[in-house]
Amino acid sequence: MAETFELVVCTTCRFPGADPQATPLTQRDGQRLSDALTAAGIAHRRQECLSACTHGCAVVLRGAGLWTYVQGGLDPDRNLADLIEMYRAYGATDDGIVPWRERPEIIRKNTIARIPPFEV
Amino acid sequence: MAETFELVVCTTCRFPGADPQATPLTQRDGQRLSDALTAAGIAHRRQECLSACTHGCAVVLRGAGLWTYVQGGLDPDRNLADLIEMYRAYGATDDGIVPWRERPEIIRKNTIARIPPFEV
Repeated sequence: MAETFELVVCTTCRFPGADPQATPLTQRDGQRLSDALTAAGIAHRRQECLSACTHGCAVVLRGAGLWTYVQGGLDPDRNLADLIEMYRAYGATDDGIVPWRERPEIIRKNTIARIPPFEV
Repeated sequence: MAETFELVVCTTCRFPGADPQATPLTQRDGQRLSDALTAAGIAHRRQECLSACTHGCAVVLRGAGLWTYVQGGLDPDRNLADLIEMYRAYGATDDGIVPWRERPEIIRKNTIARIPPFEV
């Protein structure tokens, strides 16, 4: 089980197709995803822009001694439960690698990058 | 100046357009990029697959207390000098953020993701 890990959520992300003029920052899809996670009791870190703007909504799962996963394509209106499931599965690993078949489909299909653990 | 940082190079990356049947693993674009870095005396970590396969060749710059940058679109035949320039500029920062205007164009245009420093 991961001892120290966190979920980082981009609060400025837009889901593809969103009208850039129609959404003030407080209503951005990423902000709504973050708010929904908070309402569900999922602790996370908010970050303005993860530079993954073409793959919103984007989040990062990372932790000490764990693989880091950058995930995109998350729709706050459809994928909240999938993200929470992945968050819990990630936290239950020793290395950050959730077995492929245990990853929700939206996660499997929208991995932007994975980064091996940092070893000083 | 960054005290502890590293460059991670995906050795299984293919530059877009490469014929997947024509290149054995030892001749993959990512492997060639890694070999060219070694020949240039740039220490780096090799990693088979960073799961950024649609944006090859991909690398990661990261370090203790630094922003992590996932970069793609690197052509080993054209962008070696740019990557080395970015590597050195990254190592000269205190936070991992190379000023925008100091980033080579191939870096500016191909940032896959950035991740804030991990704070336990």
